[in-house]
Amino acid sequence: MNKMIIDYRPIGIIHSTHTNPEKTPIQPVYARDCVGKVEIDIQYLPGLKDIDGFSYIYLLYHLHRVHSVKLTVVPFLDTVERGVFATRAPSRPNPIGLSLVELLRREDNILHVRGVDILDGTPLLDIKPYSSRFEGIESKRNGWQDAIDQSTAEERGRRKFKS
Amino acid sequence: MNKMIIDYRPIGIIHSTHTNPEKTPIQPVYARDCVGKVEIDIQYLPGLKDIDGFSYIYLLYHLHRVHSVKLTVVPFLDTVERGVFATRAPSRPNPIGLSLVELLRREDNILHVRGVDILDGTPLLDIKPYSSRFEGIESKRNGWQDAIDQSTAEERGRRKFKS
Repeated sequence: MNKMIIDYRPIGIIHSTHTNPEKTPIQPVYARDCVGKVEIDIQYLPGLKDIDGFSYIYLLYHLHRVHSVKLTVVPFLDTVERGVFATRAPSRPNPIGLSLVELLRREDNILHVRGVDILDGTPLLDIKPYSSRFEGIESKRNGWQDAIDQSTAEERGRRKFKS
Repeated sequence: MNKMIIDYRPIGIIHSTHTNPEKTPIQPVYARDCVGKVEIDIQYLPGLKDIDGFSYIYLLYHLHRVHSVKLTVVPFLDTVERGVFATRAPSRPNPIGLSLVELLRREDNILHVRGVDILDGTPLLDIKPYSSRFEGIESKRNGWQDAIDQSTAEERGRRKFKS
Protein backbone atom coordinates (compact mmCIF):
# COMPACT_ATOMS: atom_id res chain seq x y z
CA MET A 1 0.00 0.00 0.00
CA ASN A 2 2.80 2.37 0.87
CA LYS A 3 4.29 1.86 -2.57
CA MET A 4 1.25 3.51 -4.15
CA ILE A 5 1.95 7.04 -5.36
CA ILE A 6 -0.92 9.48 -5.65
CA ASP A 7 -0.44 12.40 -8.03
CA TYR A 8 -2.37 15.60 -7.64
CA ARG A 9 -2.08 18.87 -9.52
CA PRO A 10 -2.99 22.32 -8.21
CA ILE A 11 -6.35 23.64 -9.38
CA GLY A 12 -5.45 27.21 -8.46
CA ILE A 13 -3.56 29.38 -6.05
CA ILE A 14 -4.36 31.11 -2.76
CA HIS A 15 -3.45 34.78 -2.41
CA SER A 16 -3.12 36.22 1.07
CA THR A 17 -1.29 38.89 3.03
CA HIS A 18 0.76 36.23 4.85
CA THR A 19 4.25 35.97 3.44
CA ASN A 20 6.08 34.94 6.60
CA PRO A 21 5.27 31.50 8.05
CA GLU A 22 6.35 32.76 11.49
CA LYS A 23 3.68 35.45 11.49
CA THR A 24 0.83 33.51 9.93
CA PRO A 25 -2.19 32.77 12.17
CA ILE A 26 -2.64 29.05 12.75
CA GLN A 27 -6.35 28.71 12.05
CA PRO A 28 -9.13 30.75 10.42
CA VAL A 29 -10.61 31.48 13.86
CA TYR A 30 -7.43 33.46 14.64
CA ALA A 31 -7.43 35.16 11.27
CA ARG A 32 -10.93 36.63 11.35
CA ASP A 33 -9.75 39.92 9.87
CA CYS A 34 -7.66 38.36 7.14
CA VAL A 35 -9.21 38.44 3.72
CA GLY A 36 -7.69 36.71 0.74
CA LYS A 37 -8.40 35.57 -2.77
CA VAL A 38 -8.64 32.07 -4.11
CA GLU A 39 -7.84 32.05 -7.81
CA ILE A 40 -9.09 28.93 -9.56
CA ASP A 41 -7.62 28.03 -12.93
CA ILE A 42 -10.02 29.14 -15.60
CA GLN A 43 -10.42 25.63 -16.98
CA TYR A 44 -12.22 24.68 -13.75
CA LEU A 45 -14.66 27.62 -13.82
CA PRO A 46 -17.75 25.41 -14.49
CA GLY A 47 -17.00 23.58 -11.22
CA LEU A 48 -17.67 26.78 -9.25
CA LYS A 49 -21.32 27.04 -10.30
CA ASP A 50 -23.62 27.38 -7.24
CA ILE A 51 -20.77 27.78 -4.76
CA ASP A 52 -21.94 31.35 -4.09
CA GLY A 53 -24.82 29.94 -2.06
CA PHE A 54 -22.58 28.71 0.73
CA SER A 55 -21.41 30.92 3.60
CA TYR A 56 -18.44 28.71 4.42
CA ILE A 57 -16.18 26.53 2.33
CA TYR A 58 -13.31 24.20 3.08
CA LEU A 59 -10.08 24.88 1.27
CA LEU A 60 -7.74 21.92 0.85
CA TYR A 61 -4.24 22.91 -0.14
CA HIS A 62 -0.69 21.71 -0.39
CA LEU A 63 1.57 23.00 2.39
CA HIS A 64 4.32 23.71 -0.11
CA ARG A 65 6.82 25.15 2.38
CA VAL A 66 6.96 21.95 4.43
CA HIS A 67 9.95 19.80 3.65
CA SER A 68 10.27 17.58 6.70
CA VAL A 69 7.94 15.21 8.51
CA LYS A 70 7.75 15.27 12.29
CA LEU A 71 5.53 12.65 13.90
CA THR A 72 5.47 14.49 17.21
CA VAL A 73 5.28 18.26 17.53
CA VAL A 74 4.62 20.95 20.11
CA PRO A 75 1.51 22.63 18.67
CA PHE A 76 1.42 26.42 18.53
CA LEU A 77 -1.47 26.41 21.00
CA ASP A 78 0.31 24.19 23.50
CA THR A 79 3.60 23.64 25.32
CA VAL A 80 3.61 19.83 25.33
CA GLU A 81 4.66 17.45 22.56
CA ARG A 82 1.73 15.77 20.80
CA GLY A 83 1.29 13.25 18.00
CA VAL A 84 1.09 15.17 14.71
CA PHE A 85 -2.29 13.59 13.83
CA ALA A 86 -3.70 15.05 17.08
CA THR A 87 -2.67 18.51 15.84
CA ARG A 88 -3.06 20.71 12.79
CA ALA A 89 0.71 21.27 12.55
CA PRO A 90 2.08 21.32 8.97
CA SER A 91 4.90 18.75 9.27
CA ARG A 92 2.63 15.82 8.31
CA PRO A 93 3.51 12.79 6.17
CA ASN A 94 1.19 14.17 3.48
CA PRO A 95 1.26 17.95 3.99
CA ILE A 96 -2.37 18.73 3.15
CA GLY A 97 -3.82 21.82 4.78
CA LEU A 98 -7.50 22.21 5.63
CA SER A 99 -9.09 25.56 6.42
CA LEU A 100 -12.73 26.45 6.88
CA VAL A 101 -13.11 29.97 5.52
CA GLU A 102 -16.00 32.35 4.99
CA LEU A 103 -16.96 32.91 1.36
CA LEU A 104 -17.62 36.62 0.91
CA ARG A 105 -18.30 36.67 -2.82
CA ARG A 106 -17.26 35.26 -6.15
CA GLU A 107 -16.05 37.10 -9.24
CA ASP A 108 -15.85 34.56 -12.05
CA ASN A 109 -12.90 32.33 -11.10
CA ILE A 110 -11.91 34.36 -8.01
CA LEU A 111 -13.34 33.62 -4.58
CA HIS A 112 -13.03 36.36 -2.00
CA VAL A 113 -12.73 34.75 1.41
CA ARG A 114 -12.29 35.76 5.05
CA GLY A 115 -10.44 33.94 7.82
CA VAL A 116 -7.34 33.20 5.76
CA ASP A 117 -4.60 31.48 7.76
CA ILE A 118 -2.78 30.40 4.62
CA LEU A 119 0.54 31.52 3.17
CA ASP A 120 0.48 33.62 0.01
CA GLY A 121 1.11 31.52 -3.09
CA THR A 122 -0.15 28.23 -1.64
CA PRO A 123 -1.29 25.71 -4.27
CA LEU A 124 -5.00 24.86 -4.01
CA LEU A 125 -6.05 21.20 -4.26
CA ASP A 126 -9.79 21.21 -3.70
CA ILE A 127 -12.78 23.21 -2.49
CA LYS A 128 -15.73 21.67 -0.65
CA PRO A 129 -18.87 23.36 0.62
CA TYR A 130 -19.34 23.37 4.37
CA SER A 131 -22.71 22.05 5.37
CA SER A 132 -24.28 22.53 8.80
CA ARG A 133 -26.08 19.30 8.03
CA PHE A 134 -22.84 17.35 7.65
CA GLU A 135 -20.41 19.09 9.96
CA GLY A 136 -22.20 21.36 12.42
CA ILE A 137 -21.13 19.26 15.37
CA GLU A 138 -20.79 20.31 18.98
CA SER A 139 -17.94 18.08 20.06
CA LYS A 140 -17.72 17.35 23.74
CA ARG A 141 -14.07 16.35 23.78
CA ASN A 142 -11.44 18.39 22.00
CA GLY A 143 -8.45 16.55 23.44
CA TRP A 144 -5.53 18.59 24.74
CA GLN A 145 -7.18 21.75 23.45
CA ASP A 146 -9.81 21.62 26.17
CA ALA A 147 -7.18 22.53 28.76
CA ILE A 148 -6.24 25.77 27.02
CA ASP A 149 -8.29 28.80 28.02
CA GLN A 150 -9.77 31.05 25.37
CA SER A 151 -7.49 34.06 25.82
CA THR A 152 -4.32 31.97 25.77
CA ALA A 153 -5.55 30.19 22.65
CA GLU A 154 -6.36 33.53 21.03
CA GLU A 155 -2.93 34.96 21.82
CA ARG A 156 -1.02 31.91 20.66
CA GLY A 157 -3.23 31.26 17.67
CA ARG A 158 -2.84 34.74 16.21
CA ARG A 159 0.93 34.42 16.65
CA LYS A 160 2.65 37.60 15.56
CA PHE A 161 -0.18 38.58 13.24
CA LYS A 162 -1.71 41.97 14.07
CA SER A 163 -4.79 43.25 12.33
CA MET B 1 1.36 26.28 -11.60
CA ASN B 2 -0.62 23.52 -13.24
CA LYS B 3 2.59 21.83 -14.27
CA MET B 4 3.45 21.18 -10.61
CA ILE B 5 2.92 17.58 -9.56
CA ILE B 6 2.25 16.81 -5.92
CA ASP B 7 3.07 13.28 -4.77
CA TYR B 8 1.41 11.76 -1.75
CA ARG B 9 1.60 8.27 -0.36
CA PRO B 10 -1.05 6.49 1.70
CA ILE B 11 -0.40 6.45 5.46
CA GLY B 12 -2.87 3.62 6.00
CA ILE B 13 -6.09 2.08 4.86
CA ILE B 14 -9.76 2.45 5.79
CA HIS B 15 -11.76 -0.72 6.47
CA SER B 16 -15.52 -0.54 6.25
CA THR B 17 -18.56 -2.63 5.43
CA HIS B 18 -19.12 -0.69 2.21
CA THR B 19 -17.93 -2.62 -0.82
CA ASN B 20 -20.41 -1.29 -3.37
CA PRO B 21 -20.13 2.39 -4.32
CA GLU B 22 -23.83 2.37 -5.28
CA LYS B 23 -24.86 1.44 -1.77
CA THR B 24 -22.45 3.58 0.20
CA PRO B 25 -23.97 6.43 2.24
CA ILE B 26 -22.81 9.82 0.99
CA GLN B 27 -21.82 11.45 4.27
CA PRO B 28 -21.13 10.39 7.87
CA VAL B 29 -24.43 11.91 8.96
CA TYR B 30 -26.20 9.27 6.82
CA ALA B 31 -23.94 6.49 8.09
CA ARG B 32 -24.48 6.91 11.81
CA ASP B 33 -24.68 3.17 12.37
CA CYS B 34 -21.64 2.33 10.25
CA VAL B 35 -18.54 1.54 12.22
CA GLY B 36 -15.20 0.98 10.59
CA LYS B 37 -11.51 0.71 11.29
CA VAL B 38 -8.75 3.02 10.23
CA GLU B 39 -5.47 1.13 10.08
CA ILE B 40 -2.45 3.41 10.16
CA ASP B 41 0.88 2.04 8.97
CA ILE B 42 2.91 1.11 12.02
CA GLN B 43 5.72 3.48 11.10
CA TYR B 44 3.37 6.39 11.82
CA LEU B 45 2.24 5.14 15.23
CA PRO B 46 3.99 7.95 17.18
CA GLY B 47 1.85 10.44 15.24
CA LEU B 48 -1.31 9.05 16.87
CA LYS B 49 -0.29 10.02 20.41
CA ASP B 50 -3.04 12.06 22.13
CA ILE B 51 -5.59 11.53 19.36
CA ASP B 52 -7.71 9.50 21.80
CA GLY B 53 -8.75 12.75 23.51
CA PHE B 54 -10.81 13.90 20.54
CA SER B 55 -14.43 12.85 19.97
CA TYR B 56 -14.35 13.62 16.27
CA ILE B 57 -11.64 13.46 13.65
CA TYR B 58 -11.42 14.34 9.99
CA LEU B 59 -10.29 11.61 7.66
CA LEU B 60 -8.71 12.73 4.39
CA TYR B 61 -8.46 10.00 1.83
CA HIS B 62 -7.89 9.24 -1.82
CA LEU B 63 -11.09 8.39 -3.71
CA HIS B 64 -9.32 5.55 -5.49
CA ARG B 65 -12.31 4.35 -7.51
CA VAL B 66 -12.73 7.68 -9.28
CA HIS B 67 -11.24 7.73 -12.74
CA SER B 68 -13.01 10.62 -14.43
CA VAL B 69 -13.45 14.28 -13.63
CA LYS B 70 -16.82 15.92 -14.03
CA LEU B 71 -16.98 19.65 -13.40
CA THR B 72 -20.76 19.61 -13.06
CA VAL B 73 -22.72 16.85 -11.35
CA VAL B 74 -26.18 16.10 -10.04
CA PRO B 75 -25.47 15.56 -6.31
CA PHE B 76 -27.02 12.54 -4.62
CA LEU B 77 -29.07 14.87 -2.43
CA ASP B 78 -30.40 16.89 -5.33
CA THR B 79 -31.97 16.62 -8.79
CA VAL B 80 -30.28 19.63 -10.39
CA GLU B 81 -26.82 19.88 -11.92
CA ARG B 82 -24.33 21.77 -9.73
CA GLY B 83 -20.69 22.78 -9.97
CA VAL B 84 -18.58 19.98 -8.47
CA PHE B 85 -16.91 22.35 -5.99
CA ALA B 86 -20.38 23.19 -4.62
CA THR B 87 -20.89 19.48 -3.90
CA ARG B 88 -19.10 16.63 -2.14
CA ALA B 89 -19.34 14.40 -5.23
CA PRO B 90 -16.24 12.26 -5.89
CA SER B 91 -15.52 13.16 -9.52
CA ARG B 92 -13.24 16.09 -8.58
CA PRO B 93 -10.04 17.19 -10.33
CA ASN B 94 -8.11 15.99 -7.26
CA PRO B 95 -10.25 13.19 -5.81
CA ILE B 96 -9.65 13.84 -2.12
CA GLY B 97 -12.39 12.71 0.24
CA LEU B 98 -13.13 14.41 3.56
CA SER B 99 -15.25 12.80 6.28
CA LEU B 100 -15.85 13.90 9.83
CA VAL B 101 -16.19 10.70 11.86
CA GLU B 102 -16.62 9.89 15.53
CA LEU B 103 -13.56 8.35 17.18
CA LEU B 104 -14.77 5.51 19.41
CA ARG B 105 -11.42 4.21 20.61
CA ARG B 106 -7.87 3.46 19.60
CA GLU B 107 -6.00 0.18 19.77
CA ASP B 108 -2.36 0.92 18.94
CA ASN B 109 -2.38 1.76 15.24
CA ILE B 110 -6.10 1.02 14.72
CA LEU B 111 -8.77 3.68 15.14
CA HIS B 112 -12.32 2.47 15.64
CA VAL B 113 -14.66 5.05 14.16
CA ARG B 114 -18.37 5.59 13.62
CA GLY B 115 -20.14 7.35 10.78
CA VAL B 116 -18.15 5.72 8.02
CA ASP B 117 -19.32 6.69 4.54
CA ILE B 118 -16.13 5.41 2.94
CA LEU B 119 -15.51 2.42 0.67
CA ASP B 120 -13.63 -0.53 2.10
CA GLY B 121 -9.95 -0.44 1.14
CA THR B 122 -9.71 3.31 0.65
CA PRO B 123 -6.18 4.71 1.01
CA LEU B 124 -5.84 7.14 3.92
CA LEU B 125 -3.93 10.40 3.36
CA ASP B 126 -4.21 12.30 6.63
CA ILE B 127 -6.03 12.56 9.95
CA LYS B 128 -6.83 15.85 11.65
CA PRO B 129 -8.54 16.44 14.98
CA TYR B 130 -11.88 18.21 14.84
CA SER B 131 -12.00 21.18 17.14
CA SER B 132 -15.18 22.94 18.21
CA ARG B 133 -12.96 25.96 18.57
CA PHE B 134 -11.93 25.92 14.91
CA GLU B 135 -14.91 24.45 13.12
CA GLY B 136 -18.02 24.51 15.30
CA ILE B 137 -19.77 26.93 13.00
CA GLU B 138 -23.48 27.47 12.58
CA SER B 139 -23.61 28.39 8.93
CA LYS B 140 -26.61 30.42 7.84
CA ARG B 141 -26.38 29.60 4.16
CA ASN B 142 -25.85 26.06 2.94
CA GLY B 143 -26.48 26.77 -0.73
CA TRP B 144 -28.70 24.42 -2.68
CA GLN B 145 -28.87 22.10 0.33
CA ASP B 146 -31.12 24.52 2.21
CA ALA B 147 -33.97 23.72 -0.16
CA ILE B 148 -33.92 20.01 0.63
CA ASP B 149 -36.05 18.95 3.56
CA GLN B 150 -34.61 16.73 6.27
CA SER B 151 -36.47 13.52 5.43
CA THR B 152 -35.66 13.72 1.72
CA ALA B 153 -32.01 14.36 2.56
CA GLU B 154 -32.01 11.41 4.94
CA GLU B 155 -33.54 9.09 2.36
CA ARG B 156 -31.23 10.16 -0.47
CA GLY B 157 -28.16 10.38 1.73
CA ARG B 158 -28.42 6.85 3.04
CA ARG B 159 -28.88 5.63 -0.53
CA LYS B 160 -29.38 1.90 -0.57
CA PHE B 161 -27.63 1.38 2.72
CA LYS B 162 -29.81 -0.26 5.36
CA SER B 163 -28.65 -0.62 8.93
